[in-house]
Amino acid sequence: MVDKVSLRERLSRIPDYWHPRIVGELNGQHVKLARLQGEFVWHCHEQEDELFFVLDGTLRMELRDRVIDVGPGEFLIIPRGVDHRPVAASEVQVLLFEPAGTLNTGDAEDPRTVKNPEWLL
Amino acid sequence: MVDKVSLRERLSRIPDYWHPRIVGELNGQHVKLARLQGEFVWHCHEQEDELFFVLDGTLRMELRDRVIDVGPGEFLIIPRGVDHRPVAASEVQVLLFEPAGTLNTGDAEDPRTVKNPEWLL
Repeated sequence: MVDKVSLRERLSRIPDYWHPRIVGELNGQHVKLARLQGEFVWHCHEQEDELFFVLDGTLRMELRDRVIDVGPGEFLIIPRGVDHRPVAASEVQVLLFEPAGTLNTGDAEDPRTVKNPEWLL
Repeated sequence: MVDKVSLRERLSRIPDYWHPRIVGELNGQHVKLARLQGEFVWHCHEQEDELFFVLDGTLRMELRDRVIDVGPGEFLIIPRGVDHRPVAASEVQVLLFEPAGTLNTGDAEDPRTVKNPEWLL
């Protein structure tokens, strides 16, 4: 069934931080939404490039050699193999594009790992 | 070089309608931006699912059996093989997410076909 998805409506149903939900799938890729607050864990994805599109707030993306602040209406692609740590001083709402099966914590061991993210229908 | 992309800045450099520009690439997929105005051509993509994320304006997506109006902050995924025709009564700005090599006019013959979309760096 082809139907549109409202990001605002879907985000309103996400109760927690650092727990991406799937809101779309195409060509083996997932579209996910997440609310972020605080400091995440350093990690990388060995096989997957990952896109962060900021919808609200300012995402501070730490790389090993510098930091990039990403605001609303901006996106950042982290290529596979690049260490990164997302930090949100205040709440940040992001849309993620990445291959289905991508782990939110990549190669890191962390209690916030979401092994089977839920669909938000 | 990992760096962020501002959609507003990139869109300000697109002079024409129905001519998508590439602004990102990941996992064999392209992120594109386009300005739309008027009626496009009926077409489908045999091998590619296509995501339309509306940034500004209201996109009227005609399907064979119904019409879906997509506004700012909403997206629509058109699965491969599904006939569709985008219509923009007033200007619409969209972000597209689709496999690299996807033709804007799909299986249709049309003078607006963009065979090799440019990168907007």
